[in-house]
Amino acid sequence: MAAQLTPHELIAKHRPTLDQALEAIRTRAYWSPHPEHPKAYGEHGSLDAGSGKAAFDALLGNRLDLADQPGIDDWVGGEVSPYGIELGVTYPHVDVDVLLPAMKAGRRAWREAGAETRAVVCVEILKRISDRTHEFAHAVMHTSGQAFMMAFQAGGPHAQDRGLEAVAYAYAEQVRTPETAEWTKPQGKREPLALTKQFTPVPRGIGLVIGCNTFPTWNGYPGLFASLATGNAVLVKPHPRAVLPLALTVRIARDVLAEAGFDPNLVALAAERPGEGIAKTLATRPEIRIIDYTGSTSFGDWLEANARQAQVYTEKAGVNTVIVESTDNYKGMLSNLAFSLSLYSGQMCTTPQNLVIPRDGIRTDEGPKTFDEVTADLARAVDGLLGDDARANALLGAIVNPDVKARLEAASGLGEVALASREVSNPEFPDAVVRTPVIVKLDGAKPDDEAAYMSECFGPVSFAVAVDSVTDAVELLRRTVREKGAMTVGAYTTDADVEQAIEEVCLEEAAQLSLNLTGGVYVNQTAAFSDFHGSGGNPAANAALTDSAFVANRFRVVEVRREA
Amino acid sequence: MAAQLTPHELIAKHRPTLDQALEAIRTRAYWSPHPEHPKAYGEHGSLDAGSGKAAFDALLGNRLDLADQPGIDDWVGGEVSPYGIELGVTYPHVDVDVLLPAMKAGRRAWREAGAETRAVVCVEILKRISDRTHEFAHAVMHTSGQAFMMAFQAGGPHAQDRGLEAVAYAYAEQVRTPETAEWTKPQGKREPLALTKQFTPVPRGIGLVIGCNTFPTWNGYPGLFASLATGNAVLVKPHPRAVLPLALTVRIARDVLAEAGFDPNLVALAAERPGEGIAKTLATRPEIRIIDYTGSTSFGDWLEANARQAQVYTEKAGVNTVIVESTDNYKGMLSNLAFSLSLYSGQMCTTPQNLVIPRDGIRTDEGPKTFDEVTADLARAVDGLLGDDARANALLGAIVNPDVKARLEAASGLGEVALASREVSNPEFPDAVVRTPVIVKLDGAKPDDEAAYMSECFGPVSFAVAVDSVTDAVELLRRTVREKGAMTVGAYTTDADVEQAIEEVCLEEAAQLSLNLTGGVYVNQTAAFSDFHGSGGNPAANAALTDSAFVANRFRVVEVRREA
Repeated sequence: MAAQLTPHELIAKHRPTLDQALEAIRTRAYWSPHPEHPKAYGEHGSLDAGSGKAAFDALLGNRLDLADQPGIDDWVGGEVSPYGIELGVTYPHVDVDVLLPAMKAGRRAWREAGAETRAVVCVEILKRISDRTHEFAHAVMHTSGQAFMMAFQAGGPHAQDRGLEAVAYAYAEQVRTPETAEWTKPQGKREPLALTKQFTPVPRGIGLVIGCNTFPTWNGYPGLFASLATGNAVLVKPHPRAVLPLALTVRIARDVLAEAGFDPNLVALAAERPGEGIAKTLATRPEIRIIDYTGSTSFGDWLEANARQAQVYTEKAGVNTVIVESTDNYKGMLSNLAFSLSLYSGQMCTTPQNLVIPRDGIRTDEGPKTFDEVTADLARAVDGLLGDDARANALLGAIVNPDVKARLEAASGLGEVALASREVSNPEFPDAVVRTPVIVKLDGAKPDDEAAYMSECFGPVSFAVAVDSVTDAVELLRRTVREKGAMTVGAYTTDADVEQAIEEVCLEEAAQLSLNLTGGVYVNQTAAFSDFHGSGGNPAANAALTDSAFVANRFRVVEVRREA
Repeated sequence: MAAQLTPHELIAKHRPTLDQALEAIRTRAYWSPHPEHPKAYGEHGSLDAGSGKAAFDALLGNRLDLADQPGIDDWVGGEVSPYGIELGVTYPHVDVDVLLPAMKAGRRAWREAGAETRAVVCVEILKRISDRTHEFAHAVMHTSGQAFMMAFQAGGPHAQDRGLEAVAYAYAEQVRTPETAEWTKPQGKREPLALTKQFTPVPRGIGLVIGCNTFPTWNGYPGLFASLATGNAVLVKPHPRAVLPLALTVRIARDVLAEAGFDPNLVALAAERPGEGIAKTLATRPEIRIIDYTGSTSFGDWLEANARQAQVYTEKAGVNTVIVESTDNYKGMLSNLAFSLSLYSGQMCTTPQNLVIPRDGIRTDEGPKTFDEVTADLARAVDGLLGDDARANALLGAIVNPDVKARLEAASGLGEVALASREVSNPEFPDAVVRTPVIVKLDGAKPDDEAAYMSECFGPVSFAVAVDSVTDAVELLRRTVREKGAMTVGAYTTDADVEQAIEEVCLEEAAQLSLNLTGGVYVNQTAAFSDFHGSGGNPAANAALTDSAFVANRFRVVEVRREA
């Protein structure tokens, strides 16, 4: 196919966006080119709410348009929305012995295109995705169980931001070494030695993105775009329960690549039959040289141990702690924490799990509060936040899968329940499983309780852990991060020494810390271009989204030198 | 100890050098602050030839001055120079259960010093090493077997350049994220969300440098300085035959750290008893979070598989190829290749092993030459270069250990000998084992021969491999790099299509290529700040010296955010 989009046009169109992204990762100030408000869409070629919904509805019950992928040997799919709808979409099941070689065919042209052209092609892919944000919102909602507004924002603009951030880092990294250099070494009275050197970023091979159930686009885009922008082909293996958002992404990427004159097989999808477990097979193929994975610790550890031919970037489980020691804004703290625990039913890898509180209570602007008072007040704050069913549905979304529901149901047996979980009915989707969070009181000093709070209990389950002193709280934080990992740490304290002690633990154990949040920013949210997601330095994740370490080893620089 | 060197003074003294290094890695033009000529030393506090020799002599037969290291439980050492001298120097053998905890004590102050202070402290260490280049030259000579001038240059200024290059990359990487950011997100008509964010580079823990026999400083400095400059402590485990140069380095680093007010235990030495094999024990300790290794493929692979708690950077064995297809400077090619094969008796990881030549011969500016003529002419060129014993000794140095000697002796049995190795006597060091290179003819199509040329035969052994066509030569190059790895590839061709085919293989298999070298630059030499040593993209090494991927994962960035 003749290129309909020339590199020149794409550079003219997207270089300003790339430059702004490069500036944002340098200053880490607020920036985003992707509007968060649903009403911002509908002009300049983007789908409005109605068209997005219609586009999503048209997908249901059909084969996704990926028949142009090589090596298709079947069509598979069985996604059931956490809101109860059977999606009925089917996707290519592929013969990897056919697909993987085909994915290498376009590699040379993609490499030769250079870093800037690859970057603007990636920006064009993100632009097309952005235009269809309303359609993606429904796809993310009905695979992850996120409520519509969250699916719209986290699955749309925020995910696109994370993708663009990866493109910016990848571009910056590739152009740090110049394309050519003239090297002239003086030799005293003799003629200098002179060489002409060419430096070319070359890809490692094929990147494999193993998607997750809860944030298919947000967690999938960084690896996908980092690998693609550094010259690699990318095979996307979505979570069997969250195929649609990534399949749409692959479709768009293939279209843009083809229109720009590149081989569409540089990006492909590998869906699987229920229980087939193709990730293990794919991950150890010699063609796969990069893996991006979000999911369980056990499979992440397996990948790190077994996919030895690949660079493996994993985000696994962790146990997130919030230390509550003192506050000068008790109400703000309670409402901030209540929101953090409730958002998407606590099904974020960044949701706090252990609320570590001194047994003797805390100091607040409303006077001293005992451990029991704090937990009761927090329970009331959650109740207040979720008292209205419409608001509860809009915040909680649905329970993503039966495992989470089972964990939630078991949690109330672990200790004294400070806040019981309740069912919320969803008038629009009567089959949706919607639950409010449970808060269970545990004793930091009891071994049985420790077994509970030192394990990740993914879902709407939090533990109020009583400890003897703030020193014990800080030590528990250290041990938890070191042994179990943490995507986030939060703390409330008005005491400078306590603040410093907590900060020091986070610096030593490499955990990202949010201090005294009482307003509209929550410990479980990070903003692309500014916040790092994970640190890559504790057991919860071996990489951070996004820094240069996340991109620098996805390509290598080959030097060719000749006498000048 | 009170700081005698303040950060302010060190920054004033060394910031200009750091800035020049930063500019050099950006342009990759020629630059070095470390003079190559022995006569350049002797002023401004540096040792001249005589003082350097005297300083080296004073070390012999004594304990190296490292008694201030914690956890010393014995003094060990048994280095015998490849030139026949017993060094008689002893070094601390340590109880790692005492030493490793002690190495963590200074970590917080080193982290809090920040990237710039760490960088200038590292530059001060390198400056002190540079001042003692004459002393180091003897230490490198009498452990590696390099001839004096090579030990002086490669073990002195070139190694210091590689160390400084690592410091520059480490500094640049750490300051890519600002120390603080103000993040303000508009909220339509509501108050904007505003956060103050602090970003701190934090070290991973303790870096372990596992030194090699042949280039203790050149291969040891990049990892040592990359880890130290990124805030880590560094434990140096030298090769038992090449302890002295790294022990001197550790002594200097400890002095500078203490004078600058830091804990000297941030850098320490772990020597071992013969056959003790402490590298395995150290490499799997939980405190060790980074490993830099140069040596055999088998131990490198072991480290990658077993030291799972650490970032592992390995330079292992490879099979380096030079394709000889045609040339317009036959004499220049022969003399260039003859030098490459002879330098340090071929004991460089970058020395060409397989000279792949079409069976039907090659085109040259002196008319066509058959395969046999090319090999005979190359043999004559080596003979000419090494005909004079004084020059031979100055180029060859000594055989580093009995394994290399045994491989050399066995090589002549592998095929028809085009150039026999001969003994060279060294009047100054009668016990030195000095040998000229052997060149053996092999048939690229014979399975028995393939077993020889497809294995690394480290030492002064090269194979002239006859192939049916240039296409076969290029395919053999591809297969060799892909299966065995390569630190270097060379090629001689006047044919643009052949050149392009070779270049394409190097780009696809990630190998560093030198084309048509006929003058004073050799395929086995790389210059810091400009050339990459290895690519990190083929089996010979998983990292390149030096790029940002080599430093970016030695630290993590921890973010602390608060409401503004």
